Amino acid sequence: MTKPYVRLDKNNAAVLLVDHQAGLLSLVRDIQPDTFKNNVLALSDLAKYFKLPTILTTSFESGPNGPLMPELKEQFPDAPYIARPGNINAWDNEDFVNAVKATGKQQLLIAGVVTEVCVAFPALSAIEEGFQVFVVTDASGTFNEITRHSAWDRMSQAGAQLMTWFGVACELHRDWRNDIEGLATLFSNHIPDYRNLITSYNALTKK
Amino acid sequence: MTKPYVRLDKNNAAVLLVDHQAGLLSLVRDIQPDTFKNNVLALSDLAKYFKLPTILTTSFESGPNGPLMPELKEQFPDAPYIARPGNINAWDNEDFVNAVKATGKQQLLIAGVVTEVCVAFPALSAIEEGFQVFVVTDASGTFNEITRHSAWDRMSQAGAQLMTWFGVACELHRDWRNDIEGLATLFSNHIPDYRNLITSYNALTKK
Amino acid sequence: MTKPYVRLDKNNAAVLLVDHQAGLLSLVRDIQPDTFKNNVLALSDLAKYFKLPTILTTSFESGPNGPLMPELKEQFPDAPYIARPGNINAWDNEDFVNAVKATGKQQLLIAGVVTEVCVAFPALSAIEEGFQVFVVTDASGTFNEITRHSAWDRMSQAGAQLMTWFGVACELHRDWRNDIEGLATLFSNHIPDYRNLITSYNALTKK
Amino acid sequence: MTKPYVRLDKNNAAVLLVDHQAGLLSLVRDIQPDTFKNNVLALSDLAKYFKLPTILTTSFESGPNGPLMPELKEQFPDAPYIARPGNINAWDNEDFVNAVKATGKQQLLIAGVVTEVCVAFPALSAIEEGFQVFVVTDASGTFNEITRHSAWDRMSQAGAQLMTWFGVACELHRDWRNDIEGLATLFSNHIPDYRNLITSYNALTKK
Amino acid sequence: MTKPYVRLDKNNAAVLLVDHQAGLLSLVRDIQPDTFKNNVLALSDLAKYFKLPTILTTSFESGPNGPLMPELKEQFPDAPYIARPGNINAWDNEDFVNAVKATGKQQLLIAGVVTEVCVAFPALSAIEEGFQVFVVTDASGTFNEITRHSAWDRMSQAGAQLMTWFGVACELHRDWRNDIEGLATLFSNHIPDYRNLITSYNALTKK
Amino acid sequence: MTKPYVRLDKNNAAVLLVDHQAGLLSLVRDIQPDTFKNNVLALSDLAKYFKLPTILTTSFESGPNGPLMPELKEQFPDAPYIARPGNINAWDNEDFVNAVKATGKQQLLIAGVVTEVCVAFPALSAIEEGFQVFVVTDASGTFNEITRHSAWDRMSQAGAQLMTWFGVACELHRDWRNDIEGLATLFSNHIPDYRNLITSYNALTKK
Amino acid sequence: MTKPYVRLDKNNAAVLLVDHQAGLLSLVRDIQPDTFKNNVLALSDLAKYFKLPTILTTSFESGPNGPLMPELKEQFPDAPYIARPGNINAWDNEDFVNAVKATGKQQLLIAGVVTEVCVAFPALSAIEEGFQVFVVTDASGTFNEITRHSAWDRMSQAGAQLMTWFGVACELHRDWRNDIEGLATLFSNHIPDYRNLITSYNALTKK
Amino acid sequence: MTKPYVRLDKNNAAVLLVDHQAGLLSLVRDIQPDTFKNNVLALSDLAKYFKLPTILTTSFESGPNGPLMPELKEQFPDAPYIARPGNINAWDNEDFVNAVKATGKQQLLIAGVVTEVCVAFPALSAIEEGFQVFVVTDASGTFNEITRHSAWDRMSQAGAQLMTWFGVACELHRDWRNDIEGLATLFSNHIPDYRNLITSYNALTKK
Repeated sequence: MTKPYVRLDKNNAAVLLVDHQAGLLSLVRDIQPDTFKNNVLALSDLAKYFKLPTILTTSFESGPNGPLMPELKEQFPDAPYIARPGNINAWDNEDFVNAVKATGKQQLLIAGVVTEVCVAFPALSAIEEGFQVFVVTDASGTFNEITRHSAWDRMSQAGAQLMTWFGVACELHRDWRNDIEGLATLFSNHIPDYRNLITSYNALTKK
Repeated sequence: MTKPYVRLDKNNAAVLLVDHQAGLLSLVRDIQPDTFKNNVLALSDLAKYFKLPTILTTSFESGPNGPLMPELKEQFPDAPYIARPGNINAWDNEDFVNAVKATGKQQLLIAGVVTEVCVAFPALSAIEEGFQVFVVTDASGTFNEITRHSAWDRMSQAGAQLMTWFGVACELHRDWRNDIEGLATLFSNHIPDYRNLITSYNALTKK
Repeated sequence: MTKPYVRLDKNNAAVLLVDHQAGLLSLVRDIQPDTFKNNVLALSDLAKYFKLPTILTTSFESGPNGPLMPELKEQFPDAPYIARPGNINAWDNEDFVNAVKATGKQQLLIAGVVTEVCVAFPALSAIEEGFQVFVVTDASGTFNEITRHSAWDRMSQAGAQLMTWFGVACELHRDWRNDIEGLATLFSNHIPDYRNLITSYNALTKK
Repeated sequence: MTKPYVRLDKNNAAVLLVDHQAGLLSLVRDIQPDTFKNNVLALSDLAKYFKLPTILTTSFESGPNGPLMPELKEQFPDAPYIARPGNINAWDNEDFVNAVKATGKQQLLIAGVVTEVCVAFPALSAIEEGFQVFVVTDASGTFNEITRHSAWDRMSQAGAQLMTWFGVACELHRDWRNDIEGLATLFSNHIPDYRNLITSYNALTKK
Repeated sequence: MTKPYVRLDKNNAAVLLVDHQAGLLSLVRDIQPDTFKNNVLALSDLAKYFKLPTILTTSFESGPNGPLMPELKEQFPDAPYIARPGNINAWDNEDFVNAVKATGKQQLLIAGVVTEVCVAFPALSAIEEGFQVFVVTDASGTFNEITRHSAWDRMSQAGAQLMTWFGVACELHRDWRNDIEGLATLFSNHIPDYRNLITSYNALTKK
Repeated sequence: MTKPYVRLDKNNAAVLLVDHQAGLLSLVRDIQPDTFKNNVLALSDLAKYFKLPTILTTSFESGPNGPLMPELKEQFPDAPYIARPGNINAWDNEDFVNAVKATGKQQLLIAGVVTEVCVAFPALSAIEEGFQVFVVTDASGTFNEITRHSAWDRMSQAGAQLMTWFGVACELHRDWRNDIEGLATLFSNHIPDYRNLITSYNALTKK
Repeated sequence: MTKPYVRLDKNNAAVLLVDHQAGLLSLVRDIQPDTFKNNVLALSDLAKYFKLPTILTTSFESGPNGPLMPELKEQFPDAPYIARPGNINAWDNEDFVNAVKATGKQQLLIAGVVTEVCVAFPALSAIEEGFQVFVVTDASGTFNEITRHSAWDRMSQAGAQLMTWFGVACELHRDWRNDIEGLATLFSNHIPDYRNLITSYNALTKK
Repeated sequence: MTKPYVRLDKNNAAVLLVDHQAGLLSLVRDIQPDTFKNNVLALSDLAKYFKLPTILTTSFESGPNGPLMPELKEQFPDAPYIARPGNINAWDNEDFVNAVKATGKQQLLIAGVVTEVCVAFPALSAIEEGFQVFVVTDASGTFNEITRHSAWDRMSQAGAQLMTWFGVACELHRDWRNDIEGLATLFSNHIPDYRNLITSYNALTKK
């Protein structure tokens, strides 16, 4: 009667970054801007680090919603990039769904702006089609805590797993011995407290 | 074992506005007054915009609970208006249920004051009768976070979907191309951050 | 796959007040003291108003836990009063269970201090024996929000309904016409905002 | 359709303390440091008091993650101590799983740093293997409330019970008469408000 | 260069209760309603207990601002009661100033709704005329923390002393031996935590 | 040794609205957007209502800072409008200072975005030149509470008075009898709780 | 026009611990109990470490206020201990003032429960008599933030310096070289984050 | 009777960065880590941008306090770097004071960890010697809000000006025309909301 443990597998996971656009980012007020920017870039860094197929999509980027965060474009120059002409739910866009299916992956890591629309709609649609959906909650932003928790409830009840970028990285990596330095660098770049630990550690051991 | 994705359909949805009365509004303390007023009016605007059948109901409006917010009366002059003589759960009122059924819609968007009574009671009753119930959480207010989360838990466990007015508007609209200006106007009137984006955009593109 | 709507029925409900003792009350820090005292007294007032069988129980009241709040003793001088000699879960005490069963009611409204122990334990036990359990969340207090939400999750997942005293009163009363003045007095005594509405209303209508 | 009441039994429970390391503790920011340290030590004290088999494990303790909190090492000098060479999910470490199974217990109390990784991963794995899992939420810490609630949701949906150290102690003890002084000492050492009650009580009764 | 210690003297103090009206109370959102009502009644109880001359005043009580809290009227049936015909700053009303001066007191304890207008304006005016002004901050309410702290800053910089009802009671009483039971009763009626201490104390010492 | 009571006088006051531009508004995160927009419009409404000379100024409005809020432009079509070519402190702009001096007023009500720059700099400069400065704190926004309180401290220590739009309106109006309906309309349009009071009042008295 | 820098001098400072009694501690709700207990013990530890003359005083300790925290009695067995028979302001008690003057120190570090009475009253009295007063804000507790900030404002305006125990320890110690281990031990015992730093440091340097 | 407006002058200002060390940073809990790191780097970037003489100092960097943040060392390779052998107040270190005086500047911008010690002590000492002191509050961190506000009060009362890095940058720059791109780059790198504005602006104007 409970959800089974669906464990992330780096050979079976793809990342969907939905509508992290310069204009829409000003709507995000449930996470502070410094923190939110860091979380989104941490997610994109881990996508790159684990070589996960990544799909970018935007909504009306030539209008007030604004262009995709430039950092994302730069990081995935060859990723499928679906500038949707109007579909609010990215899953209503055939190109997008085709791109997702073309990855051949069953596990979808979804993040976006705003949580209850750009994330929840494709998450719910993907679950319906049998995908295993993982919402990256801290790389997804919205207006306030009421909308956040309403969206989380709707997605969780439908079967999505709620995770954050750090949990995703750890579950994908599984064992530090696969690449200690790589994971430590990812953490050092996005968790100031962890960087401090490494700085102090290096000062004492590397002289 | 999880809730299926019941997607809002503008041809199959009705809006129930329950007890947004001038007196009762002073009881709402889990959302700030400026924000709450804005959310309620955003919901009524979207009901009108999508031409959703809308039903108004009040509890004892000649007593201390006070009259319905005048803005709602003005916006829906021809809507069924059930001034309940005493039933606390609107669903206990035959006229109300008849009005709901007369819409012929299966999806009910419910908002009201206070959340755990005026919203939760008819929501639970409607689910029992087979309706698909969507609680518009940010157009529903109550005393504090304890009552809010108790009510959310009860409704969610019973099968209601928790959404906010913005998510509702987006799920009903589906595609910007159906009417870009209409949706943008709705957002501009009720999301100051979005209005700012449009103002800046227009300044640069419409000179 | 969702919980059915179990509706409170004043002919089928009993109230269990567990360990609202002067010493233990100093442990309650997830609700401010003025508010918590008011909520507990509101629950006891409604128990009395609706003539619900009420059972009082305490844990070690001669020790540091201290005596039951005097207001509760005074309000229910003839209620079963089980001073438990040591059982932490009141349901482990045969006298208590017998008293509950003697009421002949199937719906149990439970409140107490602290939420995750004195409320959750008997709530879980009673559900196991087939009772319909309603936790009165705002008349139950505990150390902080972490313990509150942990306890709520455990109880909700086990089938308990989370409500507050106001929702309970409204669901029991069902229709203002059953006794307008009685319900209004209950609200006026425990909701300052509602009292203000009545004061202003009376000033304008009763001169 | 709801989780049954799985009650903690001191003859059937083991405690898993995962990665409470000096470096990792600086990452914990969803609970204040004084409170978190107190909660962890309360859990270890109760493990000792109830003579629960306890297993210690760490991740890379010679690196920046730092050594286990010295207080835990001192309290359980003879406990199985698995310094994992790299597995992030402790359940991926054969020695750890063997140690757990060697206890012969079915109920696992898990706490650690950080909640969504070091706690959630082994919790989900253990549930999959049929163990009854209890997360000790307030002896587990993480970055912020978003990660906490994401992790709680994932674990709760998978069947874990969320409790805090105080609830655990009470459910294990069951009856004060089993040892009044022992339980009171545990509470006095870790709940300042309870210590105050005892101080005042003793002053009045023991002169 | 600092303010001298102006100590409250029960023979030289008067209480001004400004605009605690049923309608205006709904504007108070920087203090929870249960707590605010309790604070106001605590102040009026202490005014009565210390036999301080007390002056009541209201603004447009026949309009939407509503009537004075009935409890205040009942407690001070013979107090000067100035229903101001329109002056927003009570000090602009000659009857009010005359009533203040007629008390012959130099120390004015002022509380009211809302803080930055009904309290701050007469406080600033009274300071200008040489009175020693004490703002009872927790019996004064306003819209939010921005208005509260703006008003506090303006009054403090002008020379007002910021106190709460509890500090006022203690500074007026000076020595418990003047009347132990009287002060304890005042605290017991308005500080639930203190009432609990007394309940536990009495249980142990008065059997 | 304390600041004297400088009372606002509608014949001696001017309003300076500094940099309420569509782009800069997205930087404001110490006040929620709905509330902030309402506060700014309340201030501009009161400026108009009291016929206070009002000066508009912007910084680089053709760049990313964006154009002035259109509502302000519309409300003051004939007001001096100084689009500063580069001066960050508006007081460094001769046209602006001349416009201020041309009003002939000694009391300056200043609001803007962001508080510690666009408000604080001209406020400090104006004080230096002998003006009486009133900061309208709730119509001024900034990044977070640290910047807000740093700016408030700097301005208050320099002699500025901190007020909010409501206090300003009340101190300017002085007596309801000057125009009951005008002031009530201003409040009704910008304080939802006050509007509710009026709605209920009218319902009972105007039928 | 500003306060001069009065620097703490370990040869000229005394500590006054006022009314840290088991009953009164239950009134402290502006600081969490674990943290508050830690702060008070940190202050008493530093008093002992720096060999500062320390004076203990209580109010009615045989009544509901309860006995002094036992830890304080144990730490200062030979300190002057003034159990006041009734004076609320400790400075009204001749024995207390004599004890203070007998120390021959000019700098008084004051902490107590509750801040606005037991701390503020003697602080204001001592300033009046020419002492240099330092309020140890985090070892002083009170009902809520309103009373805290009212009390802080009153004391600060009167010339008191607001510090916390950590700042006090650092200003007294002046130079780590005076005793590295002593100061580090004090910090390690009362700042978990600092203890973690030392634990990690030792693990790397002392093997 | 108020502080005069001391305006920052880029030709007369120096920056003192005190104890931003990897270990000590783990003590900072009044600002979130992402935000705090960003603020410190923003301050160092502006110091470099305005070519302000900058002085680095640390306390015991070979011990648990850890080394200076590497980013600061890299940014100011030629700055005076005073690794204090033990003085807690940097101003007690002759080398440090000499370095400050050698800059020939009268305006000192001070930031550090922790606020009430490493910032407040040298700030108070510098004021005593006649410097104009500006505390960069958001690049200074400490344990919690109690210590922050105690330290702010002490410094402000002593004559320090409280500012944040953004206000400092604006007051130093004075006029955008001095270098539009330079200032915009500084803001874009450290204020995500501002970067978004620029991204959207460029997308519309630079195609």
